[in-house]
Amino acid sequence: MMNIAVAQSGGPTCAINASLVGVFRESLKEPEIDAIFGSVNGIEGIIENHLIDMKTLIRSNDDIELLRQTPSTVLGSCRYKLPDWHEDDTVYRKITNTLIQRQIGAFFYIGGNDSMDTVNKLSEYFREISLDIKVIGIPKTIDNDLCITDHTPGFGSAAKYVAATMHEIIRDSSVYSMPSVTIVEIMGRHAGWLTASSAVLHALGETAPHLVYVPETEFSLEIFMKDVRHEMAKHKAVIVAVSEGMEVPDGVQSGVVDNFGHKYLSGIGKYLEEAVRSEIGCKVRSIELNVMQRCSSHMCSSTDINESEAIGAAGVRHALNGETGKVMIFRRVNNMPYTVVIETADASEIANKEKFLPDNFITKSGNNISDTAVRYFLPLIQGELNIIMDRGVPKHFTIKESVLK
Amino acid sequence: MMNIAVAQSGGPTCAINASLVGVFRESLKEPEIDAIFGSVNGIEGIIENHLIDMKTLIRSNDDIELLRQTPSTVLGSCRYKLPDWHEDDTVYRKITNTLIQRQIGAFFYIGGNDSMDTVNKLSEYFREISLDIKVIGIPKTIDNDLCITDHTPGFGSAAKYVAATMHEIIRDSSVYSMPSVTIVEIMGRHAGWLTASSAVLHALGETAPHLVYVPETEFSLEIFMKDVRHEMAKHKAVIVAVSEGMEVPDGVQSGVVDNFGHKYLSGIGKYLEEAVRSEIGCKVRSIELNVMQRCSSHMCSSTDINESEAIGAAGVRHALNGETGKVMIFRRVNNMPYTVVIETADASEIANKEKFLPDNFITKSGNNISDTAVRYFLPLIQGELNIIMDRGVPKHFTIKESVLK
Repeated sequence: MMNIAVAQSGGPTCAINASLVGVFRESLKEPEIDAIFGSVNGIEGIIENHLIDMKTLIRSNDDIELLRQTPSTVLGSCRYKLPDWHEDDTVYRKITNTLIQRQIGAFFYIGGNDSMDTVNKLSEYFREISLDIKVIGIPKTIDNDLCITDHTPGFGSAAKYVAATMHEIIRDSSVYSMPSVTIVEIMGRHAGWLTASSAVLHALGETAPHLVYVPETEFSLEIFMKDVRHEMAKHKAVIVAVSEGMEVPDGVQSGVVDNFGHKYLSGIGKYLEEAVRSEIGCKVRSIELNVMQRCSSHMCSSTDINESEAIGAAGVRHALNGETGKVMIFRRVNNMPYTVVIETADASEIANKEKFLPDNFITKSGNNISDTAVRYFLPLIQGELNIIMDRGVPKHFTIKESVLK
Repeated sequence: MMNIAVAQSGGPTCAINASLVGVFRESLKEPEIDAIFGSVNGIEGIIENHLIDMKTLIRSNDDIELLRQTPSTVLGSCRYKLPDWHEDDTVYRKITNTLIQRQIGAFFYIGGNDSMDTVNKLSEYFREISLDIKVIGIPKTIDNDLCITDHTPGFGSAAKYVAATMHEIIRDSSVYSMPSVTIVEIMGRHAGWLTASSAVLHALGETAPHLVYVPETEFSLEIFMKDVRHEMAKHKAVIVAVSEGMEVPDGVQSGVVDNFGHKYLSGIGKYLEEAVRSEIGCKVRSIELNVMQRCSSHMCSSTDINESEAIGAAGVRHALNGETGKVMIFRRVNNMPYTVVIETADASEIANKEKFLPDNFITKSGNNISDTAVRYFLPLIQGELNIIMDRGVPKHFTIKESVLK
């Protein structure tokens, strides 16, 4: 008999709690596993021995279904990166103390790049001190930028929200008779996956988004202006999708700096809005999808939520099979019908690495997304959950603030 | 036999097309009515004789259901205010020509304050020239600031989206162990109805939004900072809802002007974010719900959509009863169970006027919303539509750009 621990880390998504449910449900089924501890605020809870007995929190199938569709991280999160244990093992000894004291035989870390670094380092450290505690990473990120895996849990729901909202923004932007430009800024600091996913609307027959700019391509304000003017000749309401991480060359920027204030205040969307206003002078608006794109569970993809639960559950089975230092991944076996299998990869191959849009996902012009990409994205946004409502608003599973303190 | 015309005006909402469906469906039933003309881009379409035969566009019950749940204005919109006809009747004569040429006996204008001014002026003009064409206003605005009516079509859906999204933002903001402030900027230039509606979450047991600022109260940055500090002592993640229309005194603002750039670029949310950052120095974020709050039909209120259709249909019946220069309104007969009746008011009593939050909707402290207000808001956000999906994204009813040109 052993206990297990699970923690959630990094930026919120719609699917992190579904992966937690996957770990929880699978562990309930395993006669080898006794207590299921939830660590408060990611690895910080393990360091500080701040664990919650999950069975006292999740008490019914209704709780499970509600938690599955609750956005963000019910156990809290952190942005904590472990130091190199060769240089300083203080924190590692604290972690080891907690895990031994709680008789924990396996630790599941749901998170992004940084958390997979934690999985890698912890499993190496345990191997070094010959401690038999399995460490398994369950990926999550709306950025979809993890290596090896076909896609990441949380991405499909974010992409579905972005597509649905972009569709509605197209309707909203098309009402007046005057020409206009609408710029939608979408998350993605280094990789353009989420921004690119807005192009799934082309499969519905929409010409918008007419222009899509991702960090994988070099950006030039001059070419951007040319692109916009070109689209304005064809469409009354031009819609542009742009990644927050687009690099704007300082030289280009200096020309309009006086018109749009300080850089840290205005993202790329606001920057381009001001540039269009000053150079073209038409009606122009910029929209930031902000945190809504990562937490709008009311528009989650059931494919994503179900897969996120399944990948959490698979993590438990792999740990019980004796694996450690592994990250669970998806491999797409077939696109039509869409079929994925869950496998493992070495955490060292995923930690601290990023995956970018392949060249053939971007059109040759560099300002839109290819049909190949749309075929990749579409299966990930399919299906809806039956959202549980309370007084007209989606209901959430929550833990009292006092329990988390 | 006569024909009728219908037009949509002002800013988009989730319910304007539902009111169009109401006018269309009711007109189909009436043996007195022959052609149903849709005017492209509001009154501009009447002025320019740019009308579409709606029966060629809406051809099935599937079309009707899809149009009911499509956001924005399918016929386009305008921001056109009629001049005083005593001074210049050129436009009035153009309108009259179109209506007579098309044998239109009744004109239905779906819109906000300005459109009700059009209803008022046109009906007066027709009376003056003894022309028997009925003019009826069907209200719509997410601002809920029309006089006499209990609430406006479109408001309930906007309020439901704001509440659902605010709920998700609360989850998103609560994950880290460090204290934080999240400021959500909500539409409403003069009246705080939509911002106030976010307080319905209190009925679900949420303490957030912890602070709500509406234009109906005087704003002081000093008191705001005191309020925020007070809430930070009680809650790790403080959530603030603020109306875009809050007046920030110039004197107060000058102190932080260097930190946040030009005013026309940053709304009140960004302004308060910078103020909290510079004065408190904690993690702080501002979020603008932007056009999503008026076009997110995927989270519309079925109460709102059904009422919006019903008020459109009622307009047709009142026109056939010989009324003109009237605006259709809701009167709330009972709150529990929620019951409304549809009546009429004189357009002159509604045009160009605004309705503000009553005093008892705001708490005595001036920084939150009362339970009385929550009881008013709750019935308006109840119920969901069965959203029609296409390849993972809500499907919309659209008219080809070439038809609208």
